[in-house]
Amino acid sequence: MNTVKIAYIGGGSMNWAWVLMKDLAVEREFGGEIYLYDIEYSAASANEYIGNKLFASQDNPNWKFVAVRTLEEALDGSTFIFVSILPLDFAEMRIDVHSPERYGLYQPVGDTTGPGGLMRAMRTVPMFAHIAQMIKSYAPNAWVINYTNPMSICTRTLYEVFPEIKAFGCCHEVFTTQKLLATIAEMAGFAPKGSIRREEVKTHVLGINHFTWIDQASWKDVDLLPLYADFVDRYHAEGYQDKDGNWMNNVFASANRVKMDLFRRFGIIAAAGDRHLAEFCPSSWYLQNPSLVEKWMFSLTSVDFRIEKRAGLRKKREAYLNGTESMEISDSGEEGIRIMKALLGLGDLITNVNLPNVGQCPDFTHGPVVETNALFRRDSIQPVFAGHMPKAISLMCSKHIYAQQGIVEASLERDLHKAKNIFANDLRVSELSPDAAEALFDEMARKTLPDYGQWSR
Amino acid sequence: MNTVKIAYIGGGSMNWAWVLMKDLAVEREFGGEIYLYDIEYSAASANEYIGNKLFASQDNPNWKFVAVRTLEEALDGSTFIFVSILPLDFAEMRIDVHSPERYGLYQPVGDTTGPGGLMRAMRTVPMFAHIAQMIKSYAPNAWVINYTNPMSICTRTLYEVFPEIKAFGCCHEVFTTQKLLATIAEMAGFAPKGSIRREEVKTHVLGINHFTWIDQASWKDVDLLPLYADFVDRYHAEGYQDKDGNWMNNVFASANRVKMDLFRRFGIIAAAGDRHLAEFCPSSWYLQNPSLVEKWMFSLTSVDFRIEKRAGLRKKREAYLNGTESMEISDSGEEGIRIMKALLGLGDLITNVNLPNVGQCPDFTHGPVVETNALFRRDSIQPVFAGHMPKAISLMCSKHIYAQQGIVEASLERDLHKAKNIFANDLRVSELSPDAAEALFDEMARKTLPDYGQWSR
Amino acid sequence: MNTVKIAYIGGGSMNWAWVLMKDLAVEREFGGEIYLYDIEYSAASANEYIGNKLFASQDNPNWKFVAVRTLEEALDGSTFIFVSILPLDFAEMRIDVHSPERYGLYQPVGDTTGPGGLMRAMRTVPMFAHIAQMIKSYAPNAWVINYTNPMSICTRTLYEVFPEIKAFGCCHEVFTTQKLLATIAEMAGFAPKGSIRREEVKTHVLGINHFTWIDQASWKDVDLLPLYADFVDRYHAEGYQDKDGNWMNNVFASANRVKMDLFRRFGIIAAAGDRHLAEFCPSSWYLQNPSLVEKWMFSLTSVDFRIEKRAGLRKKREAYLNGTESMEISDSGEEGIRIMKALLGLGDLITNVNLPNVGQCPDFTHGPVVETNALFRRDSIQPVFAGHMPKAISLMCSKHIYAQQGIVEASLERDLHKAKNIFANDLRVSELSPDAAEALFDEMARKTLPDYGQWSR
Amino acid sequence: MNTVKIAYIGGGSMNWAWVLMKDLAVEREFGGEIYLYDIEYSAASANEYIGNKLFASQDNPNWKFVAVRTLEEALDGSTFIFVSILPLDFAEMRIDVHSPERYGLYQPVGDTTGPGGLMRAMRTVPMFAHIAQMIKSYAPNAWVINYTNPMSICTRTLYEVFPEIKAFGCCHEVFTTQKLLATIAEMAGFAPKGSIRREEVKTHVLGINHFTWIDQASWKDVDLLPLYADFVDRYHAEGYQDKDGNWMNNVFASANRVKMDLFRRFGIIAAAGDRHLAEFCPSSWYLQNPSLVEKWMFSLTSVDFRIEKRAGLRKKREAYLNGTESMEISDSGEEGIRIMKALLGLGDLITNVNLPNVGQCPDFTHGPVVETNALFRRDSIQPVFAGHMPKAISLMCSKHIYAQQGIVEASLERDLHKAKNIFANDLRVSELSPDAAEALFDEMARKTLPDYGQWSR
Repeated sequence: MNTVKIAYIGGGSMNWAWVLMKDLAVEREFGGEIYLYDIEYSAASANEYIGNKLFASQDNPNWKFVAVRTLEEALDGSTFIFVSILPLDFAEMRIDVHSPERYGLYQPVGDTTGPGGLMRAMRTVPMFAHIAQMIKSYAPNAWVINYTNPMSICTRTLYEVFPEIKAFGCCHEVFTTQKLLATIAEMAGFAPKGSIRREEVKTHVLGINHFTWIDQASWKDVDLLPLYADFVDRYHAEGYQDKDGNWMNNVFASANRVKMDLFRRFGIIAAAGDRHLAEFCPSSWYLQNPSLVEKWMFSLTSVDFRIEKRAGLRKKREAYLNGTESMEISDSGEEGIRIMKALLGLGDLITNVNLPNVGQCPDFTHGPVVETNALFRRDSIQPVFAGHMPKAISLMCSKHIYAQQGIVEASLERDLHKAKNIFANDLRVSELSPDAAEALFDEMARKTLPDYGQWSR
Repeated sequence: MNTVKIAYIGGGSMNWAWVLMKDLAVEREFGGEIYLYDIEYSAASANEYIGNKLFASQDNPNWKFVAVRTLEEALDGSTFIFVSILPLDFAEMRIDVHSPERYGLYQPVGDTTGPGGLMRAMRTVPMFAHIAQMIKSYAPNAWVINYTNPMSICTRTLYEVFPEIKAFGCCHEVFTTQKLLATIAEMAGFAPKGSIRREEVKTHVLGINHFTWIDQASWKDVDLLPLYADFVDRYHAEGYQDKDGNWMNNVFASANRVKMDLFRRFGIIAAAGDRHLAEFCPSSWYLQNPSLVEKWMFSLTSVDFRIEKRAGLRKKREAYLNGTESMEISDSGEEGIRIMKALLGLGDLITNVNLPNVGQCPDFTHGPVVETNALFRRDSIQPVFAGHMPKAISLMCSKHIYAQQGIVEASLERDLHKAKNIFANDLRVSELSPDAAEALFDEMARKTLPDYGQWSR
Repeated sequence: MNTVKIAYIGGGSMNWAWVLMKDLAVEREFGGEIYLYDIEYSAASANEYIGNKLFASQDNPNWKFVAVRTLEEALDGSTFIFVSILPLDFAEMRIDVHSPERYGLYQPVGDTTGPGGLMRAMRTVPMFAHIAQMIKSYAPNAWVINYTNPMSICTRTLYEVFPEIKAFGCCHEVFTTQKLLATIAEMAGFAPKGSIRREEVKTHVLGINHFTWIDQASWKDVDLLPLYADFVDRYHAEGYQDKDGNWMNNVFASANRVKMDLFRRFGIIAAAGDRHLAEFCPSSWYLQNPSLVEKWMFSLTSVDFRIEKRAGLRKKREAYLNGTESMEISDSGEEGIRIMKALLGLGDLITNVNLPNVGQCPDFTHGPVVETNALFRRDSIQPVFAGHMPKAISLMCSKHIYAQQGIVEASLERDLHKAKNIFANDLRVSELSPDAAEALFDEMARKTLPDYGQWSR
Repeated sequence: MNTVKIAYIGGGSMNWAWVLMKDLAVEREFGGEIYLYDIEYSAASANEYIGNKLFASQDNPNWKFVAVRTLEEALDGSTFIFVSILPLDFAEMRIDVHSPERYGLYQPVGDTTGPGGLMRAMRTVPMFAHIAQMIKSYAPNAWVINYTNPMSICTRTLYEVFPEIKAFGCCHEVFTTQKLLATIAEMAGFAPKGSIRREEVKTHVLGINHFTWIDQASWKDVDLLPLYADFVDRYHAEGYQDKDGNWMNNVFASANRVKMDLFRRFGIIAAAGDRHLAEFCPSSWYLQNPSLVEKWMFSLTSVDFRIEKRAGLRKKREAYLNGTESMEISDSGEEGIRIMKALLGLGDLITNVNLPNVGQCPDFTHGPVVETNALFRRDSIQPVFAGHMPKAISLMCSKHIYAQQGIVEASLERDLHKAKNIFANDLRVSELSPDAAEALFDEMARKTLPDYGQWSR
């Protein structure tokens, strides 16, 4: 049996870390130790306890959690490195999400693009630059799996600092669309309800994270595009609620009206949650004001909600720790385990993943991180050529790709002036007057950048 | 002496055609015949008369104008082909420029980008597709010099249809900035007032037509960038009026405040008229409403003004024809003649020109038409590698480059739906609600596309 | 059940056509009609009879062969097109293979590279140009599967003439190496003898057809590279005979000494038969003279042998036709059927395939046909990014890639002078004096080009 | 007046250093100090004395030589850095040139390609890696002008180690061809004998150093290609001796028969000396044996001759030092001074230069050093897009380009095995048996690599 050392950066997480725990608990084809590193050691330590207890409850001796106090200890000798960190805290995220609202810029998520996403990037890039340096020193041959947002920017940063890194970014947004496609095929009578597994839906994926597209989809020999078109015809007006959305964002539900509207206009399937998709479009389309948002049937998730959610998780953690509650096993649908197994040689995998463009997206220059399918095999990831997009889609993507490249450079150089220039040209920020854009930038930077004083001006 | 046949498509023009006339009248190093073709034959014929009279008045036997009734006659056997056409007329241009105003989209020019520019492209692309086919049939080895807007889109169309074409686009906007740089060097005491010729100012040019940039500029061994920075510091607030602007747009004067504002923000020289530059930026920056335009000290040129101007030119033509007035020689500052001479081997020339990207602008994929320096020699044009842009500039340019590529495809395919998708994602149109954007598009398309009924939907 | 029309160009073949027959005879997941077109109609007609009889013998009503007299009938409405033709006949191949011997250039195959391969290309390119035109007219959306050599050149020609073609080239040479790797894993004790199927051996494929390379190979979680290294250490001196080589070339056996020598020198697995590999190397390595060939333990297949073999096949055909013998079913190991099924949506497939480089081989410019893995799905083939080669390998490949590009151009233009210039720079021809090279070229061209008189000089 | 500090690495040279001296002695538009650094300090010191005396003799106070003992002193604060070193000495060069002769590989120069060039590269790359590091530390903004061979490999090494370096390689070989073209234009009666200056001949340059090509050439409006074709027709058989060849290699004269033969075959002008050109071709063409060389009317320069020549120069130096002889001024025709002036802003310059491919040669991937025209301006060099080559020429060039990339990597990694693999695939070495190639490599490496023991095996 293969035995691996996994480093988990952000190992105190009550989110991805718990998902991993549950998935590992039933995994018996390979095993090893997961080193949990977190800037909050106590959180990592709690997860160590919770995780090991869970494994014990499953009689699974393959796996063991170890909380460590330094990044070095976690990285050294590791085969896999997960990176799932929160750049600072909800105080900053509150500013990311809500400060722009005063200027009329509403963000349902605020962690990927737009004012919130770019500001979050300015905090995250320096952290990822440090992580890349540490990986270069302590685990240059490890596979690095990033779950942190802004995904494209974080992953790009790793490659900027350590070009030989074996890193990629994973995101489950496309999976939700694959599930929807499975449901649609079932609705069309090709298979009984609930019988098609997500993995059986084959999709051509291309674009960028959270603004990802599917231009071909099939289940067996069934072309799903016409079925999707029929579905959209039927549901676009009143919306379609997929009851069992992805585990992580079922409370962040939408009626898929944005997705369907984009299909009606552009003839291609948008493969991310509506909340994400809306952020990549002009404000006028879906986000002009809260009532437009409501009309499109999705929510502006507030940070208060996130705080509340975390408070609930903390209570749950407390309960896990003092034994009043036990963690339950559930199939997450995430691919972390399958990816690791594929990289160990335990089965080929084709899935969508975020990697620097080496030509898989010929509509863009080499370098920026794009999301396409890739082939995972023993110690190998190879992007699959994704081909050209409809030109309106490459136009929409390009507006964000160039901004992402700019914010990475500005943040690596800690150059506030450069960052402001990119910020001002963000699709949605550019709707503001220059003065307003500048005031917003200054406020957000001052309040959320921990090293604000060290940025050049 | 070299003798050439020049074909002039749009040969009834009272604008570029007259400039060419005056320039040729004093040109004695080479000679030939200029075949004037115009859909309005009488206009070509009038120019034949006026031009030949002018040459006679200069005792210049080298040159002769010939008006012809078919494009074939003009093209066949030609060495050079000028294309300077007006896609339809002021009725359409009025819609290009003024219809969007009802939706709050103000355009100082409206022929390059934005709603007016894209709609004009939809009329122009099919014309240029036809011209490219004719050139392929009748003059595949001729050098094709395009002066028609939208420049990048027209030039790209020529290459789409006939990839081996030897075409490029010429525009004088950069020259105005070079003149300004010369003035600044004189103001700084490096040379007496009026002594520096524009051609002596060496500039690195990169970007796209009408949104062109200069990242290095020098006069002899003087670096002009710091001088420009001082100049901007001094004049940005109240503006700077260059009294003797380029001949063609001196009535379209500005105080260069947009140009200076862009320099203050992005640290690079914007090398086009303020009226053009503003159109490539978000509305909020310079064009939100007429009073903001006024604050930035430039004008929204109305089509009425253009009509009035043309009426004046027509009177002048009448006077030329009936002998009550004589055309006067003047140095245009245009490079048409110098370019032809360089291509004949009569002197190297380095100047900015619009060509498909083959790598001269590494920030963009190959294909789109970009504006950079090129080396002109006997029967040869070679773009000069222009290098990378500041990332905020490539971000701003990309928003238009991808739209241009999209509108070329949609117009070649006469696909109204594709065109609408690009239109809706135009930087400024995207500020409108989707419904408004669609209504505007439908109105403009219906009213200005001569072959509206033949576009697919 | 999916029903398809397959066009088979070269449908009188007693080789690939019979393989396809046998494979289809047991195929019941999809069905359809195979239209056999051959310049020798009687051969197609014979195959129609033989094939239908075979299907009947298997009680397989899914499939039916139809011999047709025109290419149009075969192509029109087809879903798949197989191209497997012999460019002229053994008379020409005799010259391809044996004329160069008089100059000391020995070729074990002579159909891919070297003097024989290039001359064969000059005959094949015009044929493929015609085929591409016909496909453009009659079946532009069909999938085109080429089996004809020279593979890279034929496939490139299809794309030169009809850039939107959905064509790729298939070759079984890599499979033989995968089988060898399976055997090696078994020899090393990882699995019982004969238990590992070729398809389970996962390989990273990169390079060009018949000079293809494997830089990573695994079976499950076993890295096969170290096992291969051990194997080479043990067998390189005396050779290793794999008894059950691929069905097609078991009579063309080798002892794998060339393959092992290349591994010892370059540290990467050469994935083609020794006879092919040797042709891509300098003569001095393996082909200087017949005794060197013998030392390396492979054969210079004579055309007499091929003629003899064909005579045998013709006898067999006669026997099939008059009923004295019955065709027997056998598993070919070829992927034609699996590929069609994957393209119909009946199961993903990752296999090596020949496609124009769109970036999958970053060591070469875009355009030339390279061989790498690709992902086959419903109506889709996407090359998998293959990454960089060892520099000595890209050096060796480049010598042939540039020659292939050159011979395609020369042959499309029917330019004898250009072709001669490429011929003279072929790796092995360049060992001759220019006079000898010219004499050889002239002789071969004169004797084997059917349209010799129409080539420009 | 501009005042600069020039660093001269290899400042004890009696070759380029003396040329520079003489050129600077009459240069009065700019001035400064030239810091001479040489591993043999006494040689630098001698040049300091000789140079300053020369300047004094010209009453030119602008310039001053300073010999220094460390590279740091030379580099620190410099504006220009010349690199003109001899990698070790004639003992090594004797092996480079003459050892391969025992195997039948004759080399007229042996410093660029072939066994001698590759071995010399293995000595030079580590030196240039060190120089690049020092420049990065002490003069990262200086312009670095390399004159050392192997030119492409040395220049590539600088960029590998310090990608932001502002380096380029200069070579005068193309100039000789331009002179020849001037002569031909005069011979054809377009201008009086001796009246056309080399700089007036405009050439499109493309290819690689010492295997450089001209596909367009003109003088004023005269196309020189047809004149060159006539010239070749007339002289190719008996050769053409240009009496006043370039100053440096007039003793290395040829009759241009190689150049003319290449034109007859490939229709493009080879723009380097015959001795260089021959080395890039198969042995069979011009170098099979000394009598073939004689037939082609050029010489195999022996190292003895070089030693003799140097002894003469040493005597001359002695004479300069003790005052028995005075250095005389002469116009070198080299462009070092003009290039520096162009970079200072004292006049645009277009000339051929060696730079990494960023797309100027689209037939090759980005990275390798190619030779094309470039535009020199104040603090700027921009390669000019050179376009495609005839395919036979790109085939011939590619054989060396890939070898150069391979030897740079091997030498930077000091990997003897990798180097041997490249060596074995060198166009001419590949004519040897593998055993012979290996024996030759081992002998040359052992005898000429100063750090032989430190290379990995």
